[in-house]
Amino acid sequence: MYFSSGFFTCIGKDGKIYDQLKYVWLQGRQVWMYCRLYRTMERFNKPEILEAAKSGGAFLRRFARIPNSGSPWKCAFCLTRDGKALKVQRTIFSECFYVMAMDELARVTGDKDMQVEAAQMMDQLVHWVRVDPSGLGKPQLSGDTPVCSMAVPMMLLCLVQQLTEARSGEEVDKYREVGGWCVKQILQHLQRGGTAILESVSSEGKELPGCEGRLQNPGHALEAGWFLLQYGLENGDQELQRTAVDKFMEIPFLTGWDKEHGGLLYFLDVDGYCPTQLEWSMKLWWPHCEALIAYLMAYSHTKEPALLERFSQVYDYTFSHFSDAENGEWFGYLTQQGKVTLDFKGGPFKGFFHVPRCLYMCEKILDSILNKQET
Amino acid sequence: MYFSSGFFTCIGKDGKIYDQLKYVWLQGRQVWMYCRLYRTMERFNKPEILEAAKSGGAFLRRFARIPNSGSPWKCAFCLTRDGKALKVQRTIFSECFYVMAMDELARVTGDKDMQVEAAQMMDQLVHWVRVDPSGLGKPQLSGDTPVCSMAVPMMLLCLVQQLTEARSGEEVDKYREVGGWCVKQILQHLQRGGTAILESVSSEGKELPGCEGRLQNPGHALEAGWFLLQYGLENGDQELQRTAVDKFMEIPFLTGWDKEHGGLLYFLDVDGYCPTQLEWSMKLWWPHCEALIAYLMAYSHTKEPALLERFSQVYDYTFSHFSDAENGEWFGYLTQQGKVTLDFKGGPFKGFFHVPRCLYMCEKILDSILNKQET
Repeated sequence: MYFSSGFFTCIGKDGKIYDQLKYVWLQGRQVWMYCRLYRTMERFNKPEILEAAKSGGAFLRRFARIPNSGSPWKCAFCLTRDGKALKVQRTIFSECFYVMAMDELARVTGDKDMQVEAAQMMDQLVHWVRVDPSGLGKPQLSGDTPVCSMAVPMMLLCLVQQLTEARSGEEVDKYREVGGWCVKQILQHLQRGGTAILESVSSEGKELPGCEGRLQNPGHALEAGWFLLQYGLENGDQELQRTAVDKFMEIPFLTGWDKEHGGLLYFLDVDGYCPTQLEWSMKLWWPHCEALIAYLMAYSHTKEPALLERFSQVYDYTFSHFSDAENGEWFGYLTQQGKVTLDFKGGPFKGFFHVPRCLYMCEKILDSILNKQET
Repeated sequence: MYFSSGFFTCIGKDGKIYDQLKYVWLQGRQVWMYCRLYRTMERFNKPEILEAAKSGGAFLRRFARIPNSGSPWKCAFCLTRDGKALKVQRTIFSECFYVMAMDELARVTGDKDMQVEAAQMMDQLVHWVRVDPSGLGKPQLSGDTPVCSMAVPMMLLCLVQQLTEARSGEEVDKYREVGGWCVKQILQHLQRGGTAILESVSSEGKELPGCEGRLQNPGHALEAGWFLLQYGLENGDQELQRTAVDKFMEIPFLTGWDKEHGGLLYFLDVDGYCPTQLEWSMKLWWPHCEALIAYLMAYSHTKEPALLERFSQVYDYTFSHFSDAENGEWFGYLTQQGKVTLDFKGGPFKGFFHVPRCLYMCEKILDSILNKQET
């Protein structure tokens, strides 16, 4: 039972489990995070962390994929405690986190089968995104116009970085081509003469009509920012580095930072209309995590004091509002005024991912800054 | 073009259209409301109101249904301005509002074809709900357990009342059987020894595990309350009338009224955990509309002063927080503290329905109270 039991992620403010459903996004992310910490940080290189990751990986391999769904790779979104599929999304994200989990687990265990499985699922993902999305199960409708959501190339770029890290060969070249395509796709979301990052654009890279076309998600743009900066650094592309910082990190701050109450707003309409998402004015934990990584990474490479100032401003808001001094961990959801309004530590979309990834990335960057100063 | 043009419903705080999509729920509700006002209130018996309703009805008949969807009755959720299907839900609600629109439009125009169409779609709805839901397009998953959502029998009961009003005959008897079934289904949501109304229960009428099973929606329970009271009055069922008032109206107030800030909370967990819906603590306009109808209807039949007191309390909050003295109409979405946080007058889920239905029902009830006093 333990060997493939997966993780509860619905955890109340004091650590109590309030729901036993198992969300595949969060299972995959937790496995990835454990493995990454185990592999790259000495103080987490402990057998119990590896065992937990292996248990989560076994649960995913046994239960995440949906039999008879038309593709051997389509995964559920949500499972019962004992692994029965309960909900399925008509998107690629459960599958993306499955790839991340399997590839990172293969790196720490040396299990080649898992690496092959990650690669095969990646091929299916690229097929769904670039060739034919019909296997995802969305019905064809007469008003359908292809919409490019920034989340899709961002996730694929993240997977490309996962799958190519410290590897070489034919497969890596194939992924590099995908990575280049992702970067081009992400850059299409820079609209209105380079003054706005829009979440969704047409397949020709043009602005879409209505609310959907005008939607901005500052936290998401910041996350794209550090993905692009990292890619630009790895590939020596200075123009891309500049765009990542000046556009994908600066614009979301100018438009998304709440000057009255502090913190990053969740959604905005580029023309100043009220977004139709009920949570638009809330402060969520994850955009703040992404902002911390983005500004610290940008500072460490540019040494521009303004970027360290941005980091400090986000840091002060984040650690005074989200982290829970009483019971540990972070709250996830605040009102616009900064009051905790959903008080659980883990929920259907908040797992062991954004907070530890943020702390991990920031620690790595801070170490590199200190190391450079010493030499 | 005018004849089948439908309605814009995304309307900003000052009346400006901010999105041109046409939501089928809202199209159907608007047609129904216009016809009901035209038919039953002298001051709205105006040709321009009938013309607007006919235009909306023609738009629905021409564009709402999705060709090749497996059923000639499956409707879209959202259409482009020119009527192309953009989104489809795997539920019955677009179709329910289509039935309401067609039947009421048939009553004012005398168009028998429309009445037949409403009846045929109703047969399909009953089939989906009571016999076989597979035509709604939800994939079968291994963890599926049949979940009874209170919205489904509530909507069907509403349609039964629409389709049977002032009619008799074989078809009406058929609907009455459906109505009785709906009432039994709704009563299954009274759980925990009659102390809680839960939104979702198992098909055996038992509590479901986890967050889903513990979810309460006070505004929805109140709406069910006045549906049940109305049904109980029409059928001379005094026990049902008592249950409607004592359970479906009283419990949501005791659990859902925000004692600190006033107003009805949107979602609650019956065991006091934090709901996972981000909007759980917001104050939405429609639960307040339903509460006004419920308490005034209950007072008019019981003459219990406590119910008039409830009405007054909800009235004071509602008219001091939702209605916009500057530009007219009501705002729809407030923070827990009562501040307007989405400032549009119409959106994807807020159309010409809950506010005018509330004012219409309350005026009718107040008239009947005054008339009884005079005689």
